[in-house]
Amino acid sequence: MALIKKPVTGMKEILPREMEIRDYLKGIINETYRSFGFNPIETPCLEDIRNLLSKQGGENEKLIFKVLKRGEKLNLETAGSEEDLVDMGLRYDLTVPLVRFYSNNSANLPQPFKALQMGNVWRADRPQRGRYRQFMQCDIDILGEASNMAEIELILATTTTLGKIGFKNFEIRINERRLLRAMVAYAGFSDESFDEVCIILDKLDKIGIDGVKEELLKSGFEAASIDKYVALFENNDGTLDNLKRIKDTLAGFLDEEVSTSLTEIIESVEKVKTADFKMVFDPSLVRGMGYYTGTIFEIAIPEFGGSCGGGGRYDKMVGNFTGQDVPACGFSIGFERIVLLLMESGFKVPGAGDKKAYLVEKTMPADKYADILSKAMKERENGRQILVCKMNKNKKFQKEQLEAEGYTDFEEFFTDKM
Amino acid sequence: MALIKKPVTGMKEILPREMEIRDYLKGIINETYRSFGFNPIETPCLEDIRNLLSKQGGENEKLIFKVLKRGEKLNLETAGSEEDLVDMGLRYDLTVPLVRFYSNNSANLPQPFKALQMGNVWRADRPQRGRYRQFMQCDIDILGEASNMAEIELILATTTTLGKIGFKNFEIRINERRLLRAMVAYAGFSDESFDEVCIILDKLDKIGIDGVKEELLKSGFEAASIDKYVALFENNDGTLDNLKRIKDTLAGFLDEEVSTSLTEIIESVEKVKTADFKMVFDPSLVRGMGYYTGTIFEIAIPEFGGSCGGGGRYDKMVGNFTGQDVPACGFSIGFERIVLLLMESGFKVPGAGDKKAYLVEKTMPADKYADILSKAMKERENGRQILVCKMNKNKKFQKEQLEAEGYTDFEEFFTDKM
Repeated sequence: MALIKKPVTGMKEILPREMEIRDYLKGIINETYRSFGFNPIETPCLEDIRNLLSKQGGENEKLIFKVLKRGEKLNLETAGSEEDLVDMGLRYDLTVPLVRFYSNNSANLPQPFKALQMGNVWRADRPQRGRYRQFMQCDIDILGEASNMAEIELILATTTTLGKIGFKNFEIRINERRLLRAMVAYAGFSDESFDEVCIILDKLDKIGIDGVKEELLKSGFEAASIDKYVALFENNDGTLDNLKRIKDTLAGFLDEEVSTSLTEIIESVEKVKTADFKMVFDPSLVRGMGYYTGTIFEIAIPEFGGSCGGGGRYDKMVGNFTGQDVPACGFSIGFERIVLLLMESGFKVPGAGDKKAYLVEKTMPADKYADILSKAMKERENGRQILVCKMNKNKKFQKEQLEAEGYTDFEEFFTDKM
Repeated sequence: MALIKKPVTGMKEILPREMEIRDYLKGIINETYRSFGFNPIETPCLEDIRNLLSKQGGENEKLIFKVLKRGEKLNLETAGSEEDLVDMGLRYDLTVPLVRFYSNNSANLPQPFKALQMGNVWRADRPQRGRYRQFMQCDIDILGEASNMAEIELILATTTTLGKIGFKNFEIRINERRLLRAMVAYAGFSDESFDEVCIILDKLDKIGIDGVKEELLKSGFEAASIDKYVALFENNDGTLDNLKRIKDTLAGFLDEEVSTSLTEIIESVEKVKTADFKMVFDPSLVRGMGYYTGTIFEIAIPEFGGSCGGGGRYDKMVGNFTGQDVPACGFSIGFERIVLLLMESGFKVPGAGDKKAYLVEKTMPADKYADILSKAMKERENGRQILVCKMNKNKKFQKEQLEAEGYTDFEEFFTDKM
């Protein structure tokens, strides 16, 4: 029986042109984050299934690729449910593995620990255009830093990287989970309804303020509370003035430290930034992951419809592993979306075009061929990319194809001239 | 319940110091292979389980991590065996995925196609020191080149890379599966006993020629055949003279083209090579993988006990996917063994030491702190790695720790001096 030529459903093969862009991006990301003192680390792609199903990953936990037990541990006859069959799963993000890694290794790591991770994650999502079941994530995280030095550094490092990639005129939208909570309390919604209200608020971009009102009404919330709640999101112009207005409105419901810290982050980043972007305070920013406890942020790039990465503070996750909380904050870049955008815009990797091809007549005897290889070796030592290949009958067509691959220079070798 | 801090059994966490070496190695490997015209590609880590279990991977097929079916496709009640439960597996090497990729994409690839892959593979091996269940492979392959141009190029590219990493005085051992077959036939063993004889021959390094004799006797082979067979491996001095001797002995059993091509490969590489190594003809070299059809080779580095990578020709594998054979040849570097060796030898990545730390007094107000960050941003723009961190009470200890991480330069910032 013939084997299967297609990749598995929803997963992507990466051809040379895309790979060139990916390698270039990874290089910039790695170099820039390192210049900020982030330390590259790697964890296994597989994690204990109990860690992955510990209710930290929200909806992603439904999308885990699970790995069958092996050998004696696998017993089909006594297995009553899925749980009996699997012991590991492919990670759905890099945050849970990072926190496990930190919990296991903190004695051997600098404190605070600034981690850089670039690695694949897997989610058994319904396949759709531009969304794959295996994709690369690029995360930076700071563990052990309670102050907003962490947020400021993460935002500066991420935006510097985006600037080096060539993005301009983008926004970092910022909010605070505690501010979201204070708004819910101020409006008179119960504490328990926090998640439900936030899920509806998260649709503001798509359905507008009237849509949010309508959905809240449908969910049975009181009209007076709803009016009070949605009024908070009027005049949402992204400024510090609006933050001040909301802070004043929420007096008695909001810890003053929250708005002070947000203001400091926004002012510091605006003062220090070198890339071309704007800090935007967005009280309606929610971010899905359940583990966030404080600041949350998101990248909005005009060329994209939606978000192109984000992050936030998750001060409670280390405690789930060690029993002792450690402050933690992270920022993730939407690597695959950036690759897609560069591919679609016909991006050319700087310096990738300077390649040379030797076309060698097919009849070249072995000893003369060795001389040609020696010449190629010398040119390569000088840093040039040299392809040695056989000359085809249709040389013109062959050269056109090589040009499409980035070869700009050709040298021909004929047997009778050697 | 507390979560699990340890990584899954047999898999490795990579801390910053090792990561620095790995990134450095990956950079050299990528750059050198590209200079030979190899094209980086990537395939998904998961493959259809039918491809992985197609008897091309030999013993590795017993070590596959299998992925549970999802949703409606998973039916525990009707599942009679493991096969009913799984649809994918983690790849155990990069060759089967490459050949599937080539079969699926050859219309959009240069011909011949020179592929470079660096990626993780997984094998559920018994855990042991220095051997992990997830590890990186670095492969180059040439598909669509029938002549020994492929072998010569693969060996030159691999040895140039090893030279750049700093290895000297190593060997590339080379043999041919067809020569192994001819030797078995010449000795009078049956065709069917080829695998069995080769498995025993493969132990020559460990058990010596007498051990091989003994095992062949134990397996019931005839003494006369055994004597004839083992005599072939006497005077195994690695030279072309020995190849000629064996070729003459095997007259009538061996296609002359086999020894001619081996000679050409050895002579060409010796003439062109720039790294410090020797080509060694080794008639006892076997290489485990079932898919090899012609030339086989292996890297022997004196610092290691055994092999540190290898490869060979597998002209029949594309045919399993497309029905039409395509000549193919590949070479894999033992990435993890090289990392281990560099780690143990205290290797320092060139240029990694030039890092500077800013120590900032804890009481620094936000606006002054922003000025310090601006200074750091300028130094980073000039290519320097700058860590901004809070000054600890025990500054001497803090500096010692930072020095251990590669920080050689310090600048201190005090609130009252800003």
